[in-house]
Amino acid sequence: MLEKDKLYFVPLYELEELRNKIITSGSDCQVYLNILATILRINILYMIKNAGSGHIGTSFSSLEMMLWLWMMEMRGANDSSIPNSDTFFSSKGHDAPALYAVMVALGKICFNNIHQLRKMGGLPGHPDIHTPFVAANTGSLGMGISKARGMAIANRLRGSKGRIFIIIGDGELQEGQIWESLQPAANGNFSEITVLADLNQIQSDREVSKTSHLGPLVEKFKGFGWNVSCCNGNDFSSLKYALDSRSKEKPNIILAKTKKGFGVSFMECLDENGFYKYHSGAPSDEDYYRALEELTITADRALMASGMDCLLLVCNKKPEVAGVGLRVEKLIQAYGEELCELGKIRTDMVVLNADLVVDCGLVGFKNEFPERFVECGIAEQDMVSAAGGLALKGVLPIVHSFGCFLSTRPNEQIYNNATEKTKIIYTAPLAGLLPAGPGHSHQSVRDISLVGAIPGVTIFEPCNEIETKLALRWAVNENPESTYIRLVIIPVEITYKLPAGYQLNKGQGIRLYTPSRVGSKTAILAYGPVMLGQAINAAREIGADLYNFPWLNFIDEDWFYGKLARYKNLVVVDDHYTKFGLGTLIGAVVAKSRLDIHFSQLGLEEIPVCGQTKEVLRHHQLDDFSIAERITDEFKNI
Amino acid sequence: MLEKDKLYFVPLYELEELRNKIITSGSDCQVYLNILATILRINILYMIKNAGSGHIGTSFSSLEMMLWLWMMEMRGANDSSIPNSDTFFSSKGHDAPALYAVMVALGKICFNNIHQLRKMGGLPGHPDIHTPFVAANTGSLGMGISKARGMAIANRLRGSKGRIFIIIGDGELQEGQIWESLQPAANGNFSEITVLADLNQIQSDREVSKTSHLGPLVEKFKGFGWNVSCCNGNDFSSLKYALDSRSKEKPNIILAKTKKGFGVSFMECLDENGFYKYHSGAPSDEDYYRALEELTITADRALMASGMDCLLLVCNKKPEVAGVGLRVEKLIQAYGEELCELGKIRTDMVVLNADLVVDCGLVGFKNEFPERFVECGIAEQDMVSAAGGLALKGVLPIVHSFGCFLSTRPNEQIYNNATEKTKIIYTAPLAGLLPAGPGHSHQSVRDISLVGAIPGVTIFEPCNEIETKLALRWAVNENPESTYIRLVIIPVEITYKLPAGYQLNKGQGIRLYTPSRVGSKTAILAYGPVMLGQAINAAREIGADLYNFPWLNFIDEDWFYGKLARYKNLVVVDDHYTKFGLGTLIGAVVAKSRLDIHFSQLGLEEIPVCGQTKEVLRHHQLDDFSIAERITDEFKNI
Repeated sequence: MLEKDKLYFVPLYELEELRNKIITSGSDCQVYLNILATILRINILYMIKNAGSGHIGTSFSSLEMMLWLWMMEMRGANDSSIPNSDTFFSSKGHDAPALYAVMVALGKICFNNIHQLRKMGGLPGHPDIHTPFVAANTGSLGMGISKARGMAIANRLRGSKGRIFIIIGDGELQEGQIWESLQPAANGNFSEITVLADLNQIQSDREVSKTSHLGPLVEKFKGFGWNVSCCNGNDFSSLKYALDSRSKEKPNIILAKTKKGFGVSFMECLDENGFYKYHSGAPSDEDYYRALEELTITADRALMASGMDCLLLVCNKKPEVAGVGLRVEKLIQAYGEELCELGKIRTDMVVLNADLVVDCGLVGFKNEFPERFVECGIAEQDMVSAAGGLALKGVLPIVHSFGCFLSTRPNEQIYNNATEKTKIIYTAPLAGLLPAGPGHSHQSVRDISLVGAIPGVTIFEPCNEIETKLALRWAVNENPESTYIRLVIIPVEITYKLPAGYQLNKGQGIRLYTPSRVGSKTAILAYGPVMLGQAINAAREIGADLYNFPWLNFIDEDWFYGKLARYKNLVVVDDHYTKFGLGTLIGAVVAKSRLDIHFSQLGLEEIPVCGQTKEVLRHHQLDDFSIAERITDEFKNI
Repeated sequence: MLEKDKLYFVPLYELEELRNKIITSGSDCQVYLNILATILRINILYMIKNAGSGHIGTSFSSLEMMLWLWMMEMRGANDSSIPNSDTFFSSKGHDAPALYAVMVALGKICFNNIHQLRKMGGLPGHPDIHTPFVAANTGSLGMGISKARGMAIANRLRGSKGRIFIIIGDGELQEGQIWESLQPAANGNFSEITVLADLNQIQSDREVSKTSHLGPLVEKFKGFGWNVSCCNGNDFSSLKYALDSRSKEKPNIILAKTKKGFGVSFMECLDENGFYKYHSGAPSDEDYYRALEELTITADRALMASGMDCLLLVCNKKPEVAGVGLRVEKLIQAYGEELCELGKIRTDMVVLNADLVVDCGLVGFKNEFPERFVECGIAEQDMVSAAGGLALKGVLPIVHSFGCFLSTRPNEQIYNNATEKTKIIYTAPLAGLLPAGPGHSHQSVRDISLVGAIPGVTIFEPCNEIETKLALRWAVNENPESTYIRLVIIPVEITYKLPAGYQLNKGQGIRLYTPSRVGSKTAILAYGPVMLGQAINAAREIGADLYNFPWLNFIDEDWFYGKLARYKNLVVVDDHYTKFGLGTLIGAVVAKSRLDIHFSQLGLEEIPVCGQTKEVLRHHQLDDFSIAERITDEFKNI
């Protein structure tokens, strides 16, 4: 019986026993590999449930490929101390839990790390080379084949015969960089590169075919000069056959048909609304125990059929989920509601999306106005330029992707649109440092700098549900130019209120807190629910005034001089790198003002770490306690 | 006889006569279209020679396509006042002189504009929708099909039956966005989109096949679900046949084989070193008159064979070329020399390039170390991620493309590499406002903001040849992290000197000028030869001290306080948008310093205009006179 306050994992000695069986069993090894795959799924499930988030579906679809490569195919995998060692990495990267499970089973990383997924100093949500034997940082899609070619060029220059194996996803095939990278690899005859395409047929939201159909793949890859073979990627024999049929002249791609969530029956299916529930995030308790039970039964059957003992698991206390019972606000939900409201009146609005319909709060609009909803797939450049074309023909496009992708991939496309002086709204959820579990590929902490200098694009970050709705309404109905809306995606407990009848005034902030009616000598400026939440505690602690300043690249200097000239000390707290964040811009205004203000900036000074909310805020000294302490240290006289 | 101090063009009435012949001649129209094409080439040649720069080769290869589309195929071309009007734009955009020549011949833009190519208020170097009947801003490659799809979606929503015709280049096919955009257009059955691929087989430097071979194209486009046909793009019958064979279910691509430089025999060929001389820039006097003579003879023969008068041209005085006889410095040349020097010792250096071997000064390195030179074609994302792969394997990659592209297209790829903390050098010529002839797609005035916040990447812009060499040497041998080198590409007369034995100290500037040995109350900080050249004149005029401050995202605060605390007034002159340029960063340092300094910033406040050097500097108030005046106005007490 599984106890519902515990999480379960397979201990090291069970893994080692199977590993030895595989090594010593010769041609029968696939029986044991299958068992190992099943019990590694138990550990993957554990890691993700324990972490509170992670990608189950893609970890399960790619596991057999990783296992076969690492155990049966590669020479000295990712171990540069071995001459001619082979290299492996996954370009999609969100299958990291599968990679870690395999590496743990092989003793490449310490077993105890399975308790440390997405925790500081543990295993990051997406791969990072600072973990032993990880070959490349991935997590943003489409870069894999290019990186592999670079590695292969270096190998050739150094006389190494090491081969490169990478896994890419099928949703990932929508990214232009994949296709940009194919022909150069064929032109250079990089047969040392083998790409395994994990065709699990489901991307972030739903089926690839219904998101942005890929069309015929064999013809495509052949058209780019690659050797193509096909297999069942969850079947070791089929995989082996495909790997053995590689070309020695051309780069090789193996189109490996797999099942997303493979190994757990109910995780292989879409839900009743046609969405896939197990792409990211942790499974519910119910799903966790159900999946665990199914995997355990499968493992036991196979173990006992092979004359081995049935499986013993080890359990740990189930971690408490932070924030349960708090009255949180959900900015994405508020955004989605307002989008529908506005869409009823503004029939010129067209919503574009890059495979994040749920995460961007677009389900309502999509259902209500299907003719004005354009699903672009994971193709941000195409999406943003298409928005440009729409705007040129008099439509109001509202473009959606995570900030880390929307501000970067189509950066030049956003600028190109801006030079046409059309009006476009760019909405970028997943803004800022949190959640920190996915790691630096997903932490959008550069987007103020990336979009901020573009003439005619105003950046706004709302601090609660009400301001989110106001922001969208302002962008749609009032701003004659373009707007980039930065949205925190995690639900946040909000301990401040905007005044009744609050309206947006471009470039002006609003005082949220003062310790006394005569005000403080010190003002803190922040924006967004994450940093305002920390800053208000700090302000209460040290007795400072707190302002919400949601305009991230525009400052109304009259307001600034009028409201802020009275302060002796001014500090800006950025949910962004300090360099070229809002603080930098406000610093320049302070310098120009000639006011005798002691100015300071807080924000990120280094690439953000992966981890849980509290530890990450503390690490970067952006939690309430650190903010209070740093302000006190800096200003002395508050 | 052609006079060698004159430039020649075909007057409007000759064009109108031919236009009438074409309209009234029915099926014989192709005879007259051919004559019109020849004489429009005379005007294209005139426009480019008169402007001092422009793209001859691609204008000549695409001219027949544009002429046929605008005169014979499209309904109400780009005229939104006509119901169901068709839309045309060129995605590559550098064939703008051909477009303008056609539009002038059709009376869509005023004839006198032919004298105003690349001049302020005239016709921009790349298309801009603020010119009448221009449908989209282009100039950065690969966006065309995406924009066309956006336009088509808008047309469908509004019930317009307008079709979209675009031209793309063959070098452009190396860009990933092209391939990203294909399948969505096929999935949506956008048969109203017709793409003409101008396969002139030569890209910026040389043959496409030798730069980055495209492989088989018919198979590729078919693999993405497009209807493909082929034709001779310089032959009207062949073009008509291909256009008539379009599909009504699928989007259409016509692979139009053309000749770059078509119509002038010697402009259809590579030079003795295998490079193509007529991609950009103005032709030499010798080439101009030779081409003009050939075109005139061709036109006369055809005119007289058709019973028409031989051609009369109108002439204008040949404009003087600015800067002749000045002692200029060429930073790109210095860079290329130093790259070769360093390459001899540092055998771990690998140079990567995106089809700009000449413009980036890489001919020497390519010839001397061919095994360490990787030509990537116009594929910046692929190039930067490949550099990431090389660096992971212990190589020092040095990556090249124009700043406007290198800081944008692969922005996320640069960041991804930075998170791996490997060392890579990014070299970005064409930095800053000048040359302003190509227009805003090529003016790299956002790259400090785009790269500046990336941890571990230092931005440096040298001010002369010596500092260029020092910068590269520092990046290769001293900086343990990555460097982004911003290089002005135009030869500049330098009127300042760096002190003997000058060395780079990270984050520290150097005083270049003081009006008196006791110094001024006012300091100007600038960087790069363009703005330092203007600023030193301003400093002399108003009696200010001038500092070269080449570190664009890092300030040594000790140096800053030590050297600059003495000034009452401090102004930073940015060759970049003011917002999030060096000035913003220095402003924040001033604010933090609590020094009683009156601070000010000069730089770009709006999207830069296209034009000639002097008028553009003056327009943006960044010429020496304006700088002096603005500083005087701002500070009063200097």
